[in-house]
Amino acid sequence: MKFAIIAPPTQTKKWEIEFYKQAPNEELLIGYETDKPEEIECVMVWGHPKGSLKKFKNLKLIFSMGAGVDHILNDNSIPKDIPISRIVDPQMAFSMTNYVLMAILNYQRCWYDFQDAQKRNHWAQFEFDEKNLRIGILGIGHLGMHAANALYRLGFEVFGYSNSLKETVFPSFYGKQLEDFLKEINVLVCTVPLTPKTRGLLSAKLFDRLTNATYLINASRGAVQLENDIIRAIEEGKLTGAFLDVFEKEPLPKDSPLWQNSKIQITPHVASLTYAEESIRQALENFRRVKNGSAPLNEVSRENMY
Amino acid sequence: MKFAIIAPPTQTKKWEIEFYKQAPNEELLIGYETDKPEEIECVMVWGHPKGSLKKFKNLKLIFSMGAGVDHILNDNSIPKDIPISRIVDPQMAFSMTNYVLMAILNYQRCWYDFQDAQKRNHWAQFEFDEKNLRIGILGIGHLGMHAANALYRLGFEVFGYSNSLKETVFPSFYGKQLEDFLKEINVLVCTVPLTPKTRGLLSAKLFDRLTNATYLINASRGAVQLENDIIRAIEEGKLTGAFLDVFEKEPLPKDSPLWQNSKIQITPHVASLTYAEESIRQALENFRRVKNGSAPLNEVSRENMY
Repeated sequence: MKFAIIAPPTQTKKWEIEFYKQAPNEELLIGYETDKPEEIECVMVWGHPKGSLKKFKNLKLIFSMGAGVDHILNDNSIPKDIPISRIVDPQMAFSMTNYVLMAILNYQRCWYDFQDAQKRNHWAQFEFDEKNLRIGILGIGHLGMHAANALYRLGFEVFGYSNSLKETVFPSFYGKQLEDFLKEINVLVCTVPLTPKTRGLLSAKLFDRLTNATYLINASRGAVQLENDIIRAIEEGKLTGAFLDVFEKEPLPKDSPLWQNSKIQITPHVASLTYAEESIRQALENFRRVKNGSAPLNEVSRENMY
Repeated sequence: MKFAIIAPPTQTKKWEIEFYKQAPNEELLIGYETDKPEEIECVMVWGHPKGSLKKFKNLKLIFSMGAGVDHILNDNSIPKDIPISRIVDPQMAFSMTNYVLMAILNYQRCWYDFQDAQKRNHWAQFEFDEKNLRIGILGIGHLGMHAANALYRLGFEVFGYSNSLKETVFPSFYGKQLEDFLKEINVLVCTVPLTPKTRGLLSAKLFDRLTNATYLINASRGAVQLENDIIRAIEEGKLTGAFLDVFEKEPLPKDSPLWQNSKIQITPHVASLTYAEESIRQALENFRRVKNGSAPLNEVSRENMY
């Protein structure tokens, strides 16, 4: 058999069903335990154990079932010559944009205050105003750009920041202009990939450079944030609160102080879900391309790490 | 003095400040107590007491500070020949669309379930799916259409229903096709004006015609809904829940069973806020038009009641 899926059990089950729908004549290895590792040519991975791909000597493609690829690139045992590609799915962009929008609208419309009022049977008319937001999207790659454009079209004020210069319909910054970007905003949406540059980026050092008290939304990777710094910045009023989908350690430990912080909203890494049908379709298509001597679609740059 | 504002105190204060900014040489009556009612030519109203306009014998314009005009038309003491116009404000559309979006996204992304999980320090990954929504907008006038178009552009499946035929980029129904519209949807967003036709429309009779268990959002007028029928439809599973901004009686009475129903979300009539600056600007402009013998902008049809 040529194909393997190495991923957490819940996701694997859906992907397995979809795989046999789309490739009924192929066989599929679940996990990495096999007597014939030399047969495996394509692995579809999400958080595989480090080193677990080493034994597949004839590997031709590593396909990431999620938008992030740090989980692959942080595994040093992966040979440098095997192409890595990742899913780029309109459904994932729809999902991520909806997540960001939900976090922003609940904040902008003081939804949590209205929920508190409801608990007390209290009619809170005229007690809360809609907030005037200046939304900064930190990381305008595929998903960040999609969310930024959607917010802009809805009529919000949007600012972008990216590693490299990007063409945008809203004001945007890049490279050394991070400071200028941070001065403009009062909502910070983080959609960066995890790279050595972005590791620990959401820290006191960055929060200190904000001009306005700012609401933080992180839908990227947990390792981008320093959770103690976020809690302190909220106490100091530099952050007005945070909406977090990702954490330094996942699952977020039961005893984390984040859970019961009234200014922090938590979701369990669900901002952008991977859709089985499209994931498998792209994995199979990319494998065909590689077998025919082409580059896979949405190939990952090992240098940029995205 | 030619101008009067008759509205609840909170709103009146903002409008008064804005009025003197834009018309520093005019005088303004607050309320309807005056020794010289014959001087008043333009009243800006929001929920005036019935009959309170009768004494203004030289009235030339009644301007509604909100999108709804039922509060004016239900006052039989208003002479038939005085033009009524209402505010039509991009900011109000922005506000209403955001409200509808927030209600939809919180439902689609199972936000309330994630909130419950957070309360228990519980990592609820893979426990809730994003819902596949088929969103019906009941009433595609100015505000309903704006929300419908925004949802459609975001990638949602949208269906519209209107009294009269409307040109739409999404499938839409009108007139006698209400039944066909209701068959398509699993989210019902109500943005109709209050008219004799829509009074009590959101009732058991309508819920019984839904094919799918449906989530109800009412951002129109409280008199459009029968609250006991909503509670029963939720108990029977015909409605999966409701997000309500308006109520049969406002403020919603302390002892209403709606407050503590776990499937009902309540906001205190804040879906679409009126912005003082634009309201006053349009009131003054429309008064100038009427004085010059033109029709006011956004004149209300007494027959259609919107």
